Amino acid sequence: MSLSDHGSGPRPQRLRAQLFDLLEVGEHYPVGARRLGLAITVLVLLNVIAVVLDSVPKIDPTLAALIRQFELMSLAVFGLEYALRLYAIVESARFRAPILGRLRWAMTPLALVDLVAIIPGVVGLSGLFDLRVLRMARLLRLLRILKLGRYSVAIQTLARVLKKTSGEIVVFAFIAVLLTIVCGTLMYQLESEAQPEQFSSIPASMWWAMTTLTTVGYGDVVPTTPWGRLLASLIAFLGIGIFALPAGVLGGAFVEELRSRRLTAHFGDRDHLNRPS
Amino acid sequence: MSLSDHGSGPRPQRLRAQLFDLLEVGEHYPVGARRLGLAITVLVLLNVIAVVLDSVPKIDPTLAALIRQFELMSLAVFGLEYALRLYAIVESARFRAPILGRLRWAMTPLALVDLVAIIPGVVGLSGLFDLRVLRMARLLRLLRILKLGRYSVAIQTLARVLKKTSGEIVVFAFIAVLLTIVCGTLMYQLESEAQPEQFSSIPASMWWAMTTLTTVGYGDVVPTTPWGRLLASLIAFLGIGIFALPAGVLGGAFVEELRSRRLTAHFGDRDHLNRPS
Amino acid sequence: MSLSDHGSGPRPQRLRAQLFDLLEVGEHYPVGARRLGLAITVLVLLNVIAVVLDSVPKIDPTLAALIRQFELMSLAVFGLEYALRLYAIVESARFRAPILGRLRWAMTPLALVDLVAIIPGVVGLSGLFDLRVLRMARLLRLLRILKLGRYSVAIQTLARVLKKTSGEIVVFAFIAVLLTIVCGTLMYQLESEAQPEQFSSIPASMWWAMTTLTTVGYGDVVPTTPWGRLLASLIAFLGIGIFALPAGVLGGAFVEELRSRRLTAHFGDRDHLNRPS
Amino acid sequence: MSLSDHGSGPRPQRLRAQLFDLLEVGEHYPVGARRLGLAITVLVLLNVIAVVLDSVPKIDPTLAALIRQFELMSLAVFGLEYALRLYAIVESARFRAPILGRLRWAMTPLALVDLVAIIPGVVGLSGLFDLRVLRMARLLRLLRILKLGRYSVAIQTLARVLKKTSGEIVVFAFIAVLLTIVCGTLMYQLESEAQPEQFSSIPASMWWAMTTLTTVGYGDVVPTTPWGRLLASLIAFLGIGIFALPAGVLGGAFVEELRSRRLTAHFGDRDHLNRPS
Repeated sequence: MSLSDHGSGPRPQRLRAQLFDLLEVGEHYPVGARRLGLAITVLVLLNVIAVVLDSVPKIDPTLAALIRQFELMSLAVFGLEYALRLYAIVESARFRAPILGRLRWAMTPLALVDLVAIIPGVVGLSGLFDLRVLRMARLLRLLRILKLGRYSVAIQTLARVLKKTSGEIVVFAFIAVLLTIVCGTLMYQLESEAQPEQFSSIPASMWWAMTTLTTVGYGDVVPTTPWGRLLASLIAFLGIGIFALPAGVLGGAFVEELRSRRLTAHFGDRDHLNRPS
Repeated sequence: MSLSDHGSGPRPQRLRAQLFDLLEVGEHYPVGARRLGLAITVLVLLNVIAVVLDSVPKIDPTLAALIRQFELMSLAVFGLEYALRLYAIVESARFRAPILGRLRWAMTPLALVDLVAIIPGVVGLSGLFDLRVLRMARLLRLLRILKLGRYSVAIQTLARVLKKTSGEIVVFAFIAVLLTIVCGTLMYQLESEAQPEQFSSIPASMWWAMTTLTTVGYGDVVPTTPWGRLLASLIAFLGIGIFALPAGVLGGAFVEELRSRRLTAHFGDRDHLNRPS
Repeated sequence: MSLSDHGSGPRPQRLRAQLFDLLEVGEHYPVGARRLGLAITVLVLLNVIAVVLDSVPKIDPTLAALIRQFELMSLAVFGLEYALRLYAIVESARFRAPILGRLRWAMTPLALVDLVAIIPGVVGLSGLFDLRVLRMARLLRLLRILKLGRYSVAIQTLARVLKKTSGEIVVFAFIAVLLTIVCGTLMYQLESEAQPEQFSSIPASMWWAMTTLTTVGYGDVVPTTPWGRLLASLIAFLGIGIFALPAGVLGGAFVEELRSRRLTAHFGDRDHLNRPS
Repeated sequence: MSLSDHGSGPRPQRLRAQLFDLLEVGEHYPVGARRLGLAITVLVLLNVIAVVLDSVPKIDPTLAALIRQFELMSLAVFGLEYALRLYAIVESARFRAPILGRLRWAMTPLALVDLVAIIPGVVGLSGLFDLRVLRMARLLRLLRILKLGRYSVAIQTLARVLKKTSGEIVVFAFIAVLLTIVCGTLMYQLESEAQPEQFSSIPASMWWAMTTLTTVGYGDVVPTTPWGRLLASLIAFLGIGIFALPAGVLGGAFVEELRSRRLTAHFGDRDHLNRPS
């Protein structure tokens, strides 16, 4: 973590440098930066609740109006946040060039997430699109949840666990898909005569195989012939055995990650600002 | 465990000191204290059974009368227990003051639990409240179950495991809630046109997402479109992976706790009586 | 394993000693004893299949007749086995007395299991009982499955795992029962007004709570109110967390037991014959 | 890995030796061999998708025609692959004899899998069989999935895990079957009077027992009597405990296998070519 570009000694004098420290580094104003992060986290969570409530058809009109007001306010805050970040980012060593640096920053994952948090709201306000697009845009506001990735230790932990165990996950997913296909095909062969509507094709039987292998068991499609039930029993026992595999792998990596996490600083990783791209 | 206030040498002479030892410490009368604890445990469990049976509409009138009698008797016993504890507690170093000490003791968690075990019964007997309150009071008698926390090693173990892993639980609960929201929103987008009644809003779709992520799979709401079923399969496999995470964490802490528990004395922790508040 | 009573040098000369070795010890005739054990295991498994098939109402008459013949044959074999064991057991140090020793042997768990394997068949043949008893007796033939405990390493392993983890199982069962009661009562409070038929009483709501906590999720009883569904979600997530606890405990003990098992001799434990009671 | 038969120094000159290296060894042409393996893997996966889509009754005619064309092409490729392998295999030390060696190779598991990948297609083209056989042959094309065993690390890992834990799996399967029978019989006794259609026989009750022990819980058969529900609760809790056993065993072996796998070379095991049979 070399922060040589703005010297860790005296506090930054100029407003832009102060903003940069507050928004991206949190070195000279750790309390302010933490409070800002907390405020954005709370705002994002309120936005998530708003999107969820907004989808209820028979919602109270007063609440609906409140949600619309809140949406406008959130859009203003997130827009301002994006603008300030874009303005201040040239303080970093990596994005120093006024125009090219800002463009390059705008293409980083974190900046794209911040942009994605604004676009659906702007689309909704613009009045340029038809209802279908507007409805989609309303749901896409949920993407603001991605902004939590910058502040939430929980999400960062999960992301690291998934990254660390990605090899095992690929192996397991491959086995899971093949197993679903094989089990679905076998059941199609056994049950499609007795229940031509339920087990109408291999994809339909794969739906049943999935609900059984994962032990979800909705019960919307169920074998009724003796041989079908015998096979279903084998598949259910198989499901428990095979699908127990990732539990140990992921669980172990999760515990390890949480422990190592506690030992490191809590503000997160600032290296991405100074690392040459 | 410094029990200097009543000297661990000779047996206490005065009745109050004997009561205190029997009810709270169990040092000079370990057998009596253990038997008293067992008796209260059994009485609480019988009370739980009584509350459960009492809710059955077509219960046998003789049994209903017996339950009412038993309720009166239990209320008397728990009331007497509370009164005796309140009377004897001034023997402890921490609650020595006759009035203030007793008041301060009455605000401790264990004393509040003992109080809560009496109030619903008193409310039911008072004849001052309407039916709705009485019905609620009848159910609240179940709170007597909390009294087990003083005697049951099982519940103390669970409480310690939950306390020890509370950090992981918070992280996991946060991920679980976000995941339920995201999966519910995706499914709402895919299925609400085909099944406008079942997937009527994001909260309704979140209900489906919860049953799938936890692999409960009631089957009251089930996707029917091909894309909905594909997404449901992904979510079910995801559920197994993600929700396997806490299993390892909690299971490990539980084993550890049970082992360390065996090495310590079985009567419980008396330190709370002498620790200065 | 002191087998001093019949000297491990020369082969036993008398028929009774040979029988005893074959049936109970397997020292001088290891191959014969193993084959006998395998034969009885196979016979028991065929009996289990017979009991299962016998319960099918529309069974083929020929198969039904065959099953009746097979039942008679099995009864004869198990009866002969019991008689021979009773005859030969006085060769052991522990049950030497001709009458008292045999009586004492007859009260050991393994001998009782052998007796229980015969009684239902005898009851069925006697013609002394009414239909209800006969139907019960037919099902009780399934108890012959217990005879596998003498020969099956799998069942012995499971029994040892359960014995070793019995402390944890009691703690966990206690928590599971309390949790089912508490969750059932809460749901009864929330849903009994909206669905008075489904959540008619606390026991009925406990049935729902059990299906959710274990993630079985039949879907025959499902909450429909928003608060009921919110509580159900909490309970389902809780269920995954709490019910993951025994998995680690039992799984670990199972692996350990299987490993230690491989290192010891495979014929089983003969100590019970010579240990003074 | 002694590859003395064709010297690891200079590249093979003759076409047959080059083919052999490309198809079976991958020593002199590692890039070509890997690309060939990848191409066959992709072709097999496309075949699996084709079989799955082909079963959908209302499929688009254009797509159906495309699938038929693709099937012909695949059959040609797999046939050519088999012929080339058969032609080149005599280069190996183990199958050197022109006719007997080729016959012996044709009986190896991998060669049988390659043969099985061709036969259903040939049967379908031959026009010699009735509709029932043709339908079966269409599904059997899914057996081409077995060809992945030669190239897929995921499948090889799973196969090794299953082989390593086969002892535990047998023990567990035995317990699972016995438990299903016992639970099914108990429930048959308790519920068959109240629900003679649902719990008509022990096999029918075993179907219910399986859905409960595995926590699949379709909900098509559910106990309704109080005693039946009490037993069902016990069985569901039992299911979680007992069926957690294999999770630890398999999960542990899977992690171990994946780790050891990473350390060894990725192309697979060529020893089978030179090992004397």
